[in-house]
Amino acid sequence: MKKKENNTCSGLKIIPLGGLEQIGMNITAFEYEDSIIVVDCGLSFPADDMLGIDLVIPDVTYLKDNIDKVKGFVITHGHEDHIGALPYVLREVNVPIYGTRLTMGIIENKLKEHNLLKTTKRKVVKFGQSINLGQFRVEFIKTNHSIVDAAALAIYSPAGCVVHTGDFKVDYTPVYGDAIDLQRFAEIGKKGVLALMCDSTNAERPGFTPSEKTVGRTFDTLFEEHKNTRIIVATFASNVDRVQQIINTAYKFGRKVCVEGRSMVNIIETARNLNCISIPENTLVDIDQLKNYPDEKQVIITTGSQGESMAALSRMANNMHRKITISAGDTVIFSSNPIPGNEKSVTKIINELLRKGADVIFQDAHVSGHACQEEIKLIYTLLHPKYAVPVHGEYKHLTAQAKIAESLGIHKENIFILSSGDVLEVNEEEAKVAGKIPVGAILVDGLGVGDVGNVVLRDRQHLAEDGIMIVVMSLDKESGLLVAGPDIVSRGFVYVRESDELIEEAREIVDEAIQSCLDRGITDWGKLKSTTKDVLSDYVWKKTKRRPMILPIIMEV
Amino acid sequence: MKKKENNTCSGLKIIPLGGLEQIGMNITAFEYEDSIIVVDCGLSFPADDMLGIDLVIPDVTYLKDNIDKVKGFVITHGHEDHIGALPYVLREVNVPIYGTRLTMGIIENKLKEHNLLKTTKRKVVKFGQSINLGQFRVEFIKTNHSIVDAAALAIYSPAGCVVHTGDFKVDYTPVYGDAIDLQRFAEIGKKGVLALMCDSTNAERPGFTPSEKTVGRTFDTLFEEHKNTRIIVATFASNVDRVQQIINTAYKFGRKVCVEGRSMVNIIETARNLNCISIPENTLVDIDQLKNYPDEKQVIITTGSQGESMAALSRMANNMHRKITISAGDTVIFSSNPIPGNEKSVTKIINELLRKGADVIFQDAHVSGHACQEEIKLIYTLLHPKYAVPVHGEYKHLTAQAKIAESLGIHKENIFILSSGDVLEVNEEEAKVAGKIPVGAILVDGLGVGDVGNVVLRDRQHLAEDGIMIVVMSLDKESGLLVAGPDIVSRGFVYVRESDELIEEAREIVDEAIQSCLDRGITDWGKLKSTTKDVLSDYVWKKTKRRPMILPIIMEV
Repeated sequence: MKKKENNTCSGLKIIPLGGLEQIGMNITAFEYEDSIIVVDCGLSFPADDMLGIDLVIPDVTYLKDNIDKVKGFVITHGHEDHIGALPYVLREVNVPIYGTRLTMGIIENKLKEHNLLKTTKRKVVKFGQSINLGQFRVEFIKTNHSIVDAAALAIYSPAGCVVHTGDFKVDYTPVYGDAIDLQRFAEIGKKGVLALMCDSTNAERPGFTPSEKTVGRTFDTLFEEHKNTRIIVATFASNVDRVQQIINTAYKFGRKVCVEGRSMVNIIETARNLNCISIPENTLVDIDQLKNYPDEKQVIITTGSQGESMAALSRMANNMHRKITISAGDTVIFSSNPIPGNEKSVTKIINELLRKGADVIFQDAHVSGHACQEEIKLIYTLLHPKYAVPVHGEYKHLTAQAKIAESLGIHKENIFILSSGDVLEVNEEEAKVAGKIPVGAILVDGLGVGDVGNVVLRDRQHLAEDGIMIVVMSLDKESGLLVAGPDIVSRGFVYVRESDELIEEAREIVDEAIQSCLDRGITDWGKLKSTTKDVLSDYVWKKTKRRPMILPIIMEV
Repeated sequence: MKKKENNTCSGLKIIPLGGLEQIGMNITAFEYEDSIIVVDCGLSFPADDMLGIDLVIPDVTYLKDNIDKVKGFVITHGHEDHIGALPYVLREVNVPIYGTRLTMGIIENKLKEHNLLKTTKRKVVKFGQSINLGQFRVEFIKTNHSIVDAAALAIYSPAGCVVHTGDFKVDYTPVYGDAIDLQRFAEIGKKGVLALMCDSTNAERPGFTPSEKTVGRTFDTLFEEHKNTRIIVATFASNVDRVQQIINTAYKFGRKVCVEGRSMVNIIETARNLNCISIPENTLVDIDQLKNYPDEKQVIITTGSQGESMAALSRMANNMHRKITISAGDTVIFSSNPIPGNEKSVTKIINELLRKGADVIFQDAHVSGHACQEEIKLIYTLLHPKYAVPVHGEYKHLTAQAKIAESLGIHKENIFILSSGDVLEVNEEEAKVAGKIPVGAILVDGLGVGDVGNVVLRDRQHLAEDGIMIVVMSLDKESGLLVAGPDIVSRGFVYVRESDELIEEAREIVDEAIQSCLDRGITDWGKLKSTTKDVLSDYVWKKTKRRPMILPIIMEV
């Protein structure tokens, strides 16, 4: 692995604007002379210390500053971490979007919600088709992933060809459509690939990811074993193939299927309109019709497999769902794995379901959508790139892929683990990190985009830990005398009714300190406030070993 | 599984006071006529929504109310979830403590810190030895676990014998001391066991937990493979056997060992004093001596294997450790698995270590301390209990053990999954949940024990999500007129310097609303405050889709 900064080498610039310091928020700019194209435009979900934040989007100042060059967004697939920031970024970087059919269908749902459909140019691209964008030509290549219509991109520029795999796996027996177009990968490889940017998510895992079809067989077995109960299957909203397989099995066993959870309903509808899913007649029923069928003739496919507290499954388990409650005898299948960080909330919901008497199956009904080590090796071997730039994953995944690339004979100096903002310049002769552009994560909280930053987060953290004590007092404008207060109000600190004494003593200590200042002729508000903070925080620390935020407010009357 | 409430059945009462609604906080009362004994007295760590809380201890009102009956605490082993609440509970329930040697050593460290050593009666019990406590006789039986000197308890009462395994595994080749005393289990089983309370932690896992010794062989291999680098091993502070094995391997390879992290240093010192660990001369060195040896002659054993932000490993990785920093070429071995919930913080530290250029090994250098399914079956088969009461684990673990018990021929009606507070009455004829006592979790925050409850936590949650807006105003006592304000101060809401307009407009809206109230002769503070809350929260929601806490404060001048 090499990472040095140097002067210049003309050629293609590869600039990740996000996605390398966090999971998600995938967005990479490719620049050649007067042309820039952007691969993906994803969001990421807030880290644990980003209290109250809804989602995180990339800072695209670089694109705004070079708006005349930017030719368009080329999108690999329709997952949030690859498309989720579009509605925000398009407001400032309004260029056309290119993607495959279902990908575009999902993007259009999103644009509709944000009232951006009319103002956004879009073009659906077929597999094998190329689009010309300034100095670039981009070819969409069929891959497999946990969402239909995922594409790898061959990005041709005068400097050479870069292949970006997007998120992918190798599935020889996919549920919908063709297997990954390995022949085309081979052809492109034969002609010469400058650089490969390959999915690292599963680079630590040996072997091959099993085919999606294997999950279908598992469903057959599980449905056979649970013939006499209602079956509820929780999975990812966007995994159309998974839903297809659950429906296939349900049909085979003569069960009616109800799909529950807004995001899943939307995506399945989009997939149906595009014929990406085929549902036998009279199989899908509305939630209100369920009651017309006995339990053993029902299947409910639901969101909430990650234990999300507001998703349908969680509402069912906690008796908060309007129409469905879990009861003894139900069989609940988790067709998913917990995403790192969600283990506890998934376990919580499993415990809740078991308490309700449900039979919970949370193993073996899922396969990953990402390539394991042998698949990564296959792609490297077909493409035989000069340079390797591992993408998609945390640092440990990127280094795991770097090791694989090295084991396949790629020189250590030709493998680049980039940071967001790195400008990697590549041509046939050399590749180097030749600069750094400003990048960052912008926090979205409600309607506010970027109005919550470090100061606000630090305050939220402080408030969350120990609460706040507010000290108010009124001073007379002329005499400078204390005419009201100090009064103390607290929130999130102690239960006040049971801590009267503590609060009253605190008030007296502040009163004394302020009076003593005023007696000595000190009327400077800054000094009065800092005195209040000091004496109160000392007192509270001594009494409770806590450090609530202390906020003195002085009013002038 | 059976769980019914009924009138009465005289006999032995088994009353879990905690540990069944959460991981940790293990404490169970056994009551027979005028005698109560308490098995373990653990703490639990705060759930994610318990903002700012340091730790959680059980509510022991039942023991206080029956203090005359309580004969003592019998402790199975020295982990926090079994002894951590002692310093708090002893202040209210000051009865003698019984435990094995290392267990008592660790408890004494704790009592010393809390200034309770002099006021607490203690007795060290040997394996095979029994103690008489009122109507009870308690025998300590040797087991194996991830801490030395773990014991199962055979609790004899006139109603029969109950065996409580504590946390255990079956290790035929333990590092220190003997294997679990299976012969004694068999003997007791032969005589007849009324009920078995068995560790459920690994009840979902098939097979056998490997011997601790296997980890020693892994260390040998890893040290052989990394002969030329410094080696840092992170593990649990209390796993003395693990530290012993690292030291053994280090000695074999001629390396010096430094132990880092306060909790680990304390426990190793205690273990040394009790001869539970044997360290070859001239092997252990002080941290300041490390610099006298080349990297390849050093081993650092450290705390922080769970990614705890203040532990030694984390400080090393983040350049915050006074004496040790990670550099390229270091080998860091995680001799641990992430405890559920810690996955993200462990990954974070792994990424940080990799970025520093360290080689990180985070697989295969750990074994569990808990019994898997085959070991659980072995214990059931040796003891052949009439009733099964699975303990230690989340609900899903308890149900997994219930299934095992059933598969071994124990009647479904004789298996009890209890909730904390359930009073299980058992005798030879029958067993039933015959009542419920009040139990609960008491939150410890700093010095405060129980002064943070639901109201305070809800406020902290609210503050954490959206911050606070404070509206202050002064009213004239006589005229009722507004003489100062309303002023708005916010924290954790928006970055104020960039939101001048929003705050100013909010101020005007509140001002208008208050003036309008006063104009209409409304001077009731409650009404003024609720008006302020309503107009401000509407305005802020409309503008930002956020709901900060709104706190109106009125001063009278």
